[in-house]
Amino acid sequence: MDLAALSQGLDTIWVVLTAAMILLMEGGFALLEAGFVRQKNAVSIIMKVFVDITFGALIFYFVGFALMYGKDIGGFIGSSGFMMGGDLSHINLNITHDTYWLFQCAFVIAVISIVSGAVAERIHFKAYILYTIIMTGLIYPLAGHWVWAVGGWLGKLGMIDFAGSAVIHALGGFSALAAAIFIGPRIGKFAADGKVNIVPPSNLPLASVGAFILWFGWFGFNSGSTLSATNGSIGHIAVTTMLSAAAGGATCILFTMFRYKKADPPMVINGSLAGLVGITAGCSFVSDGAAIFIGAVCGIAMVLVTEYLESKQIDDPVGAFAVHGISGSLGTLAVGLFAKPELTDGVGQGYYGLFYGGGWNLLGVQALGLALISVWGFALTWAAFWLIRKITPVRVSKDEELIGLDVGIHGVPAYNQEHDFLDVERLTAGK
Amino acid sequence: MDLAALSQGLDTIWVVLTAAMILLMEGGFALLEAGFVRQKNAVSIIMKVFVDITFGALIFYFVGFALMYGKDIGGFIGSSGFMMGGDLSHINLNITHDTYWLFQCAFVIAVISIVSGAVAERIHFKAYILYTIIMTGLIYPLAGHWVWAVGGWLGKLGMIDFAGSAVIHALGGFSALAAAIFIGPRIGKFAADGKVNIVPPSNLPLASVGAFILWFGWFGFNSGSTLSATNGSIGHIAVTTMLSAAAGGATCILFTMFRYKKADPPMVINGSLAGLVGITAGCSFVSDGAAIFIGAVCGIAMVLVTEYLESKQIDDPVGAFAVHGISGSLGTLAVGLFAKPELTDGVGQGYYGLFYGGGWNLLGVQALGLALISVWGFALTWAAFWLIRKITPVRVSKDEELIGLDVGIHGVPAYNQEHDFLDVERLTAGK
Amino acid sequence: MDLAALSQGLDTIWVVLTAAMILLMEGGFALLEAGFVRQKNAVSIIMKVFVDITFGALIFYFVGFALMYGKDIGGFIGSSGFMMGGDLSHINLNITHDTYWLFQCAFVIAVISIVSGAVAERIHFKAYILYTIIMTGLIYPLAGHWVWAVGGWLGKLGMIDFAGSAVIHALGGFSALAAAIFIGPRIGKFAADGKVNIVPPSNLPLASVGAFILWFGWFGFNSGSTLSATNGSIGHIAVTTMLSAAAGGATCILFTMFRYKKADPPMVINGSLAGLVGITAGCSFVSDGAAIFIGAVCGIAMVLVTEYLESKQIDDPVGAFAVHGISGSLGTLAVGLFAKPELTDGVGQGYYGLFYGGGWNLLGVQALGLALISVWGFALTWAAFWLIRKITPVRVSKDEELIGLDVGIHGVPAYNQEHDFLDVERLTAGK
Repeated sequence: MDLAALSQGLDTIWVVLTAAMILLMEGGFALLEAGFVRQKNAVSIIMKVFVDITFGALIFYFVGFALMYGKDIGGFIGSSGFMMGGDLSHINLNITHDTYWLFQCAFVIAVISIVSGAVAERIHFKAYILYTIIMTGLIYPLAGHWVWAVGGWLGKLGMIDFAGSAVIHALGGFSALAAAIFIGPRIGKFAADGKVNIVPPSNLPLASVGAFILWFGWFGFNSGSTLSATNGSIGHIAVTTMLSAAAGGATCILFTMFRYKKADPPMVINGSLAGLVGITAGCSFVSDGAAIFIGAVCGIAMVLVTEYLESKQIDDPVGAFAVHGISGSLGTLAVGLFAKPELTDGVGQGYYGLFYGGGWNLLGVQALGLALISVWGFALTWAAFWLIRKITPVRVSKDEELIGLDVGIHGVPAYNQEHDFLDVERLTAGK
Repeated sequence: MDLAALSQGLDTIWVVLTAAMILLMEGGFALLEAGFVRQKNAVSIIMKVFVDITFGALIFYFVGFALMYGKDIGGFIGSSGFMMGGDLSHINLNITHDTYWLFQCAFVIAVISIVSGAVAERIHFKAYILYTIIMTGLIYPLAGHWVWAVGGWLGKLGMIDFAGSAVIHALGGFSALAAAIFIGPRIGKFAADGKVNIVPPSNLPLASVGAFILWFGWFGFNSGSTLSATNGSIGHIAVTTMLSAAAGGATCILFTMFRYKKADPPMVINGSLAGLVGITAGCSFVSDGAAIFIGAVCGIAMVLVTEYLESKQIDDPVGAFAVHGISGSLGTLAVGLFAKPELTDGVGQGYYGLFYGGGWNLLGVQALGLALISVWGFALTWAAFWLIRKITPVRVSKDEELIGLDVGIHGVPAYNQEHDFLDVERLTAGK
Repeated sequence: MDLAALSQGLDTIWVVLTAAMILLMEGGFALLEAGFVRQKNAVSIIMKVFVDITFGALIFYFVGFALMYGKDIGGFIGSSGFMMGGDLSHINLNITHDTYWLFQCAFVIAVISIVSGAVAERIHFKAYILYTIIMTGLIYPLAGHWVWAVGGWLGKLGMIDFAGSAVIHALGGFSALAAAIFIGPRIGKFAADGKVNIVPPSNLPLASVGAFILWFGWFGFNSGSTLSATNGSIGHIAVTTMLSAAAGGATCILFTMFRYKKADPPMVINGSLAGLVGITAGCSFVSDGAAIFIGAVCGIAMVLVTEYLESKQIDDPVGAFAVHGISGSLGTLAVGLFAKPELTDGVGQGYYGLFYGGGWNLLGVQALGLALISVWGFALTWAAFWLIRKITPVRVSKDEELIGLDVGIHGVPAYNQEHDFLDVERLTAGK
């Protein structure tokens, strides 16, 4: 046993374990979304998460990884690594390309899962499969290439996004917004007289536990993004992740007690997640104090944007845009403000934010990159659904929506309290 | 701090962490099974999982481990290591025997949990405890000894089963089949006129999350089976595990959309698990492409075998045989086809499958081992229940089955929606 | 890459991963408690867990850590490390102070979560926030300082508490007892004629899975307390943890079958947890056999104390005192009996329990420390609630309690089965 083998082994188990934690987040997404939607759509939303993790992984294996991390063409797109073949010699890591793929695969599945919440309770299953293919095979890989790949043009410009506030969450969030607008609100969400109807979540204990699982996975998400266990920033990353999440949740408790006269459970759940999203870009580069501030701001912004979307009659059932789009954007910009040169990426590279003498430079690059990624996500998602609509209906029929997608599309209710057996006839009669 | 100590520490935390992940799979089994059965039996199935993890661990400590990994007698049985005592010097690992025991303990608990699903909703609790003792103390340890122990005769013959498609899943699955046939179908499952009644799962969100937890644990199951963090195959194992699971799930989505005109949630859940089971034997030895193929075949086979069992009036409530027995068998055989010599066990030993110039040799050994293990599991389980029936009823009374095992056997319902307190009298009046 | 960097990286990921596992236990607590209480209070108890993890983390960052692990003053209190600033040079670890903080933060959140269960279904939310601040900022940090900090007087006296049977569980459990008595029983729990009304748990599958998640986290809790991956006891700790939990659960299965003629699910769930709590102090120092014995005793004691509290009309809805207070106490004392000198803390320090020739010395110190910590927790909690009552009501109004805290305090039910949208008016009309 020599030092090099030990070091490779250490980095490998670090990346495999954190990748597994990120993949467990799909269980978190499934619970969160199933708990937030109405009972009649709880299985249909989970089936979308299964599409994310199954189709997402395969498409990323066949196509997405190559476009994202393959040999760069013009700073814009990768060109090798389809099915992990071809020249990947530009990727120099202390782990195998296989292991690297797994970690990146966990990321792409998270991105598409963000969108799944925004189209809940009304998207047609086939359309969702097609969109998943486009997102994981094209939209995300290109945006990711620009920032994270060797040769990507935004990365070369100096954009910093440690674990993906922009590449994962802003992209996912703005894509979610486009999808929510394109597909339109759920029947009855906005009454004819403009009144907003509240949809009480069907199962808040499940949604809460989804949030705790996501929180757990986030330690893998952020700390694991070092891709090396000997990276000196791992501890700091885990601490800023924890503090920002705590600040997001605590702020939402206090803010909703002040604003609504009651601590609002769905807002508190999403507030913690907003804190997690917000710190994702800067977890390695900002101080503990800045992490708390970022989390607090993201928590409050999430509440206000959730209200704003409702006032604009945009129906985002689980708050995907308010959580991921807004906090992802704030977090990306926060790097430009709070990056502290002593706090490096763990291997020596630090940055100067506006508040640490860096001037407007870094902030400008962050804003530019964020704007492009957000527009890219929004526009390509809109275009994708426009195309998909030419092939197959994007939205379920009115009857299917009213009966619920679980029985309407998948032929089985999420919850069944009957004690005895149902006939096949009885079960399918509802269709 | 020297290199050897570091290496031991690294291997130790790798095995402890992956063992913990495998033990968390019991939470996954509990959710999966509680979600698939009727509401009136949701606690009773979870109580069986508690039997698995509590009695299973203790019996394996006192007896099972010794018979499985103790000093070999004739290739057939181990003879030392009862309560971790006696001569275990033949086990040469970079981790302590303690740590090794924990990992193997997590495995045996998984085996017995496979059977728990097949007898759900009708087995008597006492009979299940007795069967658990026999399975974890005798049936599994002997089969495991043959393949995995130093001196085991199937291992010496050349049988390969990296993380247990045969030893864990085929054994568990064929035992589950024997148990399901022995105990007979649930009342009402098969009508007098031969019609099959469908049992809609009581809680599909719980079942789904169970699957995601199992998926997470499987990274520990397969990658952790290296028992060493510096094993060069860890990354490849994790990737084939991921791809096969994704292929199993994606295939079931498409196949059920084609066959039933709807993506069938329970089938998709079990399809992902089938992919995971199928890759377990060959995760280190087959290519990515083969992993996808294995997962896809296991997914489709699971659907067809589920239908076939129903047509034969065999009642396996959660699909334990279709998932574990069939995919475990296919996965074991697949090694004989797809083993690629360059893809080793991570420490240099590779194998030649039929498609890589190995001829029928390896496939023959795999088939022989699989046949023996399957027959052993089926026959011993049948014998065990036959013996148990002489001591205590194997099946609950008709009244208990109709009222449900939760209230009938354990005196408490799984779900209770009452707002106020129930009297002791009211609660027990249902018995 | 040199050996020192590798060693630091290894220890860092060990501590970060185990800290994440402990933090996931909040998801376990949330499920356990939400499943044990009535449906009308399922969200309110989860909101308390959110208070634990958000306010708890922040208060511990600003104040608690400094009082606990800061530069010692008189063996009684720490004085540096507020916001991780100031002189922490007395903490010599192979991990950064940041990383150390995260692990300790996960611990404090566990302590306060123990109390949350005892006051379920009737405490006012604001009062709970205030209590959380006092517990995580003062009560726990001081007790922890005495035993675990450099210079703490109980530690200097020779008290041993590896991962916190006393500091975490006895402290949390006796605080829970004080809180339960102070706030009084739930309306209807004890009838006017003295009869005890049973509250059937609202969701036993959730509670069970909570227990499995806690079990998983406990491997992080106990093994991670080595704070070093090269500690030679990690494997042994994980095994004693597993065996004690298994013994606690198996004993409760058998004991309730004997005592109530049925294996009682809530008791079995809590019995496993009792075994885990009981082994926490001695996991590194006692033999496998002792671990099984400790787990079995804790399991039975938990059942008997649960019954005893009910007979005394003390209402502890989830059994926090019986699980954490009693098993924590037994586990702390057990070290004085069973500590075996060959079984060290992994870096060479072993102890002599009564049964291994150590005389009454160690047992005496354990008893003294336990008594002080228990009294401290009970008295300070009582004082805290006495103070809080001067500021804000500790208990919800009768109407709020009857309608349930979910709708009464948080304005939203945990579970909602309606298919269609509710008006804002309809939802809030219940208030």
